[in-house]
Amino acid sequence: MNISATEELLLQRHTVRSFKDQTLTDEQYTRLMEAARFAPTSEFLQQCSIIRVTDSHLREQIRTICHLDYVGANGDLLVFVVDMYRNHRIRAQLGLADDGLRSTDLFIQAMEDTLIAAQNVVIAAESMGLGSVYLGSIQNDIRPIIQMLKLPKLTFPLVGLQVGVPEKRTQVKPRMPLPLRSFENQYQDEFNLQNFAEYDAIVETYYGQRDSNQRIDSFTKQIADKISRKRFKRDDILAVIHEQGFCQY
Amino acid sequence: MNISATEELLLQRHTVRSFKDQTLTDEQYTRLMEAARFAPTSEFLQQCSIIRVTDSHLREQIRTICHLDYVGANGDLLVFVVDMYRNHRIRAQLGLADDGLRSTDLFIQAMEDTLIAAQNVVIAAESMGLGSVYLGSIQNDIRPIIQMLKLPKLTFPLVGLQVGVPEKRTQVKPRMPLPLRSFENQYQDEFNLQNFAEYDAIVETYYGQRDSNQRIDSFTKQIADKISRKRFKRDDILAVIHEQGFCQY
Repeated sequence: MNISATEELLLQRHTVRSFKDQTLTDEQYTRLMEAARFAPTSEFLQQCSIIRVTDSHLREQIRTICHLDYVGANGDLLVFVVDMYRNHRIRAQLGLADDGLRSTDLFIQAMEDTLIAAQNVVIAAESMGLGSVYLGSIQNDIRPIIQMLKLPKLTFPLVGLQVGVPEKRTQVKPRMPLPLRSFENQYQDEFNLQNFAEYDAIVETYYGQRDSNQRIDSFTKQIADKISRKRFKRDDILAVIHEQGFCQY
Repeated sequence: MNISATEELLLQRHTVRSFKDQTLTDEQYTRLMEAARFAPTSEFLQQCSIIRVTDSHLREQIRTICHLDYVGANGDLLVFVVDMYRNHRIRAQLGLADDGLRSTDLFIQAMEDTLIAAQNVVIAAESMGLGSVYLGSIQNDIRPIIQMLKLPKLTFPLVGLQVGVPEKRTQVKPRMPLPLRSFENQYQDEFNLQNFAEYDAIVETYYGQRDSNQRIDSFTKQIADKISRKRFKRDDILAVIHEQGFCQY
């Protein structure tokens, strides 16, 4: 099978958590932002904004919230923001109500815009020889993030992304085989544990060979361990979404 | 500025709604699914599944819900599904509770997995000379979509994607300038209408030159017109998310 260079990038992409002590050049940063800017956008509403966090005090605060040493250490730190405030402001100046902006429908559309733009940045970065790591961990305690970035109502910081010149690369993690996640015409719910046995063995082998980490957990073991009831202040997320004015109906 | 071939693809990508009357080859389809499979996944939970809709009756039903002639006409029709059911099944067989799966936190993570995978497919398709259109319109009436694809609780069909060999291409739509959506350290809320004037003029010129469509709407005009209170049955979305077992807290 002869795949394109871009597909090669997609298949080889892996999370980088260790970056060289250098920030992106202006040109590199602009190229990443252009990739975000031209991402597909639902109904052309363009409901995503991006904040580049360069202030060392802010970076330190975000690191503390993420509980991860590498956050805001080296490389560039971006926060991708679901943004309906901008469209709200346009409508307000035209004397229009913004009930629609408060629907779950629109929140989902704005989340789509935001994540699609983020992934475009991830892929552009790969193609430039840069590495990246998504930071879902900003959700550990989202209210201070909103405060420190001075995010108004009708915005929501969805995900962080750290980008930089890789210091250390790891291997691509083996993913679940397609028959367990790709179906035709209807959902297949044959998820007996034995169907995961072969994949579990592959994942264990991966961890066994990975030099940087001694964890040897199968996939199902991780699913058993990771999904717990209480994680930091993440139980506040729904309340914060409502506080920010979203998903009122 | 010398950009990579992959960045070129990201900047040139535009929605294709008109496809040749041919489905993807098995090889093409597998390559798209591999791009989805290797997409970044939050905490390695892999909470996305994909359903390829090949049945003509199902395609017709989806077309009716989307209110768009091209949906399910030519090309391949995919539905990207937020999927925690699979992990729920793993946990149930291990005798573990799944309260965590019912949190908004996890729903957001699963949405992230799903959209990031979808965008990987979009980009892989571009690199193979294929075109695509996101179908947020499956949300017009989401309960019948859930029923027809036999989606269990703890799944949610987030977005459709039609992919195929382009019959007709359009131009890239001009996007909002970066100063209006990309900020440093804190959100900038200077969204006076005059700040959009130049961009509005560019968008109007784009529509004026586009041969396939006579609409000449500026960006702010579209923001004024598009965000209405009532759209099909989209007001049901939050209720359906809850019905499916998500965002209980």
